Amino acid sequence: MTKPGSRRRGQRTGRSVRDKNLITQQPWKQIEYQYQPQNVLSEDQIEAIHEASLTILEDIGVKVHEPEARRYLEQAGAKVDHASEMVYLDRGLVEEKLKLPPSEFTLHARNPARNVKVGGKHAIFASVGGPAFVSDLDKGRRQGTYAEMCDFIRLVQSLNILHQEGGGPFEAMDLPQESRHLDLHYAQATLTDKNWQPWGLGQDRARDGLEMGCIALGITREELVDKPVFTTVINTNSPLQIDIPMAEGLIEMALHGQPVIITPFTLAGAMSPITLAGALTQQNAEALSGIVLAQCVRPGTPVIYGGFTSNVDMKTGSPAFGTPEYTLAAQASGQFARRYGVPFRSSNVTSSNAVDAQAAYESQMSIWGAMTGHVNLLNQGAGWLGGGLVASFEKLIIDAEMLQMMSAYNKPLAFDDDAIALDTIREVGPSGHFFGTSHTLARYEDAFYAPMVSDWDNYENWIDRGSLGTAERANKVWKKLLSDYEQPEIDPAIDEALQDYMARRKQEIHGKTA
Amino acid sequence: MTKPGSRRRGQRTGRSVRDKNLITQQPWKQIEYQYQPQNVLSEDQIEAIHEASLTILEDIGVKVHEPEARRYLEQAGAKVDHASEMVYLDRGLVEEKLKLPPSEFTLHARNPARNVKVGGKHAIFASVGGPAFVSDLDKGRRQGTYAEMCDFIRLVQSLNILHQEGGGPFEAMDLPQESRHLDLHYAQATLTDKNWQPWGLGQDRARDGLEMGCIALGITREELVDKPVFTTVINTNSPLQIDIPMAEGLIEMALHGQPVIITPFTLAGAMSPITLAGALTQQNAEALSGIVLAQCVRPGTPVIYGGFTSNVDMKTGSPAFGTPEYTLAAQASGQFARRYGVPFRSSNVTSSNAVDAQAAYESQMSIWGAMTGHVNLLNQGAGWLGGGLVASFEKLIIDAEMLQMMSAYNKPLAFDDDAIALDTIREVGPSGHFFGTSHTLARYEDAFYAPMVSDWDNYENWIDRGSLGTAERANKVWKKLLSDYEQPEIDPAIDEALQDYMARRKQEIHGKTA
Repeated sequence: MTKPGSRRRGQRTGRSVRDKNLITQQPWKQIEYQYQPQNVLSEDQIEAIHEASLTILEDIGVKVHEPEARRYLEQAGAKVDHASEMVYLDRGLVEEKLKLPPSEFTLHARNPARNVKVGGKHAIFASVGGPAFVSDLDKGRRQGTYAEMCDFIRLVQSLNILHQEGGGPFEAMDLPQESRHLDLHYAQATLTDKNWQPWGLGQDRARDGLEMGCIALGITREELVDKPVFTTVINTNSPLQIDIPMAEGLIEMALHGQPVIITPFTLAGAMSPITLAGALTQQNAEALSGIVLAQCVRPGTPVIYGGFTSNVDMKTGSPAFGTPEYTLAAQASGQFARRYGVPFRSSNVTSSNAVDAQAAYESQMSIWGAMTGHVNLLNQGAGWLGGGLVASFEKLIIDAEMLQMMSAYNKPLAFDDDAIALDTIREVGPSGHFFGTSHTLARYEDAFYAPMVSDWDNYENWIDRGSLGTAERANKVWKKLLSDYEQPEIDPAIDEALQDYMARRKQEIHGKTA
Repeated sequence: MTKPGSRRRGQRTGRSVRDKNLITQQPWKQIEYQYQPQNVLSEDQIEAIHEASLTILEDIGVKVHEPEARRYLEQAGAKVDHASEMVYLDRGLVEEKLKLPPSEFTLHARNPARNVKVGGKHAIFASVGGPAFVSDLDKGRRQGTYAEMCDFIRLVQSLNILHQEGGGPFEAMDLPQESRHLDLHYAQATLTDKNWQPWGLGQDRARDGLEMGCIALGITREELVDKPVFTTVINTNSPLQIDIPMAEGLIEMALHGQPVIITPFTLAGAMSPITLAGALTQQNAEALSGIVLAQCVRPGTPVIYGGFTSNVDMKTGSPAFGTPEYTLAAQASGQFARRYGVPFRSSNVTSSNAVDAQAAYESQMSIWGAMTGHVNLLNQGAGWLGGGLVASFEKLIIDAEMLQMMSAYNKPLAFDDDAIALDTIREVGPSGHFFGTSHTLARYEDAFYAPMVSDWDNYENWIDRGSLGTAERANKVWKKLLSDYEQPEIDPAIDEALQDYMARRKQEIHGKTA
């Protein structure tokens, strides 16, 4: 049996000594927006797109490949043609269902101290999920192993700025394809005590995720219904389709009251109109179709409005990420989510194949689009590289740094007389210095953001220390974090129950003990 | 005589052939903000800082080292103690002078097509000015030569996204210190037809800049008074001092009606209080002192409110740039500029010593702070590296890319029925594709931002082409731009007059022909 416990450190020996050398991090806390979101569309434009989306759903229709999903929609009053798999949702039905999902909910983790609020002024950051490849500076891009995947999850646990594990950073190619989701869930449930995303593709896997999540939290599947634990990304198949695995995953999660993240992948110029207004219209129609389906399965199912509109490179057809169009689409998507009173999901993305300046500026463009759009769940928040095909160990650290900066940006500012500091300005006077004042000494330890990987030193010192670039420093940071990693405590009975479940399911899948 | 014309290409031979291989760029145009600025301070907080600033100017006072500057202020009604060099500005005086500067003005270039608007919803981007060192990937960091400086200025001319040359990218260390400002001005006046910043330090140099600028524009110094041409950065000497060279430069420029950019360099924790509210209060007081001085010298002198509050690294005392605190300070500074109805200056900065991820994300943090603060002049907009000690050829290109993205972000969005594209969505239908639609074909050439240095290709192609990082690609871009550079046309009589002026002044300075 595969057991990722080799690095486990139950005993916290020597903690106080080791602490001195720990990587600088901000403490765990959720982001709470301090400033207004950036609205890039006028209210009229929002309503125009809303109306056009309703026309799409009513007149053009959505192709729903999964029969059960069509039946749910038909029962709710949609016009359905089962032969062509087409579903037509009239305006009244859509408007009625849009009233049902909650605007905020709490997402539960194995460790209640890691529970997080989703919606409103709250934001959470998730790690990258789903890439095919892993990469680091030492060995380059490659297919990943389970041991490497566990290391990545350990880092997600170690990085305080990450609030959620994003669904498995990459595939563990040394494990059998049919059952490796079980090993992933075991790693998620034991190597981190944060919330984690399950695999949402297909009914059986969705159920395995639910079962293992419930075991980890010590609850039954029945108790799950009023306790959001699993956020599952449901991508529509643009244009205007919901495919079978996605519909199965959505239904399974909605039946258990679990939040579904409806995310159309509307690449302007390819799977949606080339105009941003057109791409957003189609994104919105598709998002609404998923939201309505979830409400038809179970009224009140929490949903998250996912925005992932970007554009293709018209020369090559490649998707582009972190472009100005992406930024605008993220901000506009936040407006739609607020229009419908549901939480908003966006992402931290880049097309860059290297952990370099482009990776950073495209990520920044997407992070700023997301944050100024008041994203509630920044999915793919840390570690994404190469258009999402790669999970990078160094990018994980650099993204965590950038997210920490956004967190620090959203720290409430002191604005009392002490903060304005007129007395200190008077005390120092013209040509004085503030280093030694009592005002400075009382605050210097945590007055400013302290970086994890940024190097602020002068050129000479930087050269003396080997003139390491950001990616090389990030390489050292993740290795240090990994060596300092301590596995979060878990009830041995729960650990055993997880192992038992995994063993049983592997036997069912493979017909033998894996 | 040093003449930077060796790369001049008066004849546009083979233009149409060469065009095919030119670097992708957006056409020259000014930025016009499409969206609301981000206000991080409440109106009450703005007023609290305004009031505290007035108290500083009235009670604590500002040390003004230059006697003439003190006399201007005294004549306007300020309380002056010439022995201690202290000046006290009462509230009424400050409020009265704040009514005088214009909220918008046009900045003139040698080529009227390059004139730009400063203020309101308009933004211009300037290249880096003032570093001690030059750097590129080929030769690393070093002291620069005049030939290299001319190449840098050629690139500033070539990059459409840059609206202003920022005052000399680095020192030409192969020229005599006393007169190299003349060579710089000759290069600025002849290698670019864009607006450029003169040296503002000291009276003689300020006058040389004015003279050569007037010659280049074919106007007299008298005609200059109603024609803003020179934006000069005037740094206060924080805390609460205006030193002699800065005062001389300010007076010289104000007497000629030229815009002065009053920029306190208030590093929180060192030259200003450690709290952001305190640092902003002191920044504001210092900025107001400079604005008032300019209005006392000549009522109606255009001023630009410069925000440069950042923080020090409390461990080392090094200044930090592009931090969350810097971003917030930039946004707040924009609010003060709008409160006073004057244009706003901010910058694109980083502490990074390498052209890498940190350089990009710190620059992005500062660019986003500036742009969401509705900066009107992004000074140090492209090329800054290593805390401002270095002008980097590769960073110049990468910054230009990032600025182009911000320009594309601020392109007006189409929102008519054609843009919403309901008919096209209907035409394509579920499971179709948008590549071949007439809607796409009519728009694909300029629908999306096309990058200059970003690589959106897939991993395999990227590897095949040598797996170049962003900085390495930027290295190729600037070399190509340089080889494609064409010197803008100039009236030979003006060129000769510039050379004559330079020769005469060098003789005065050195007592011989340089």
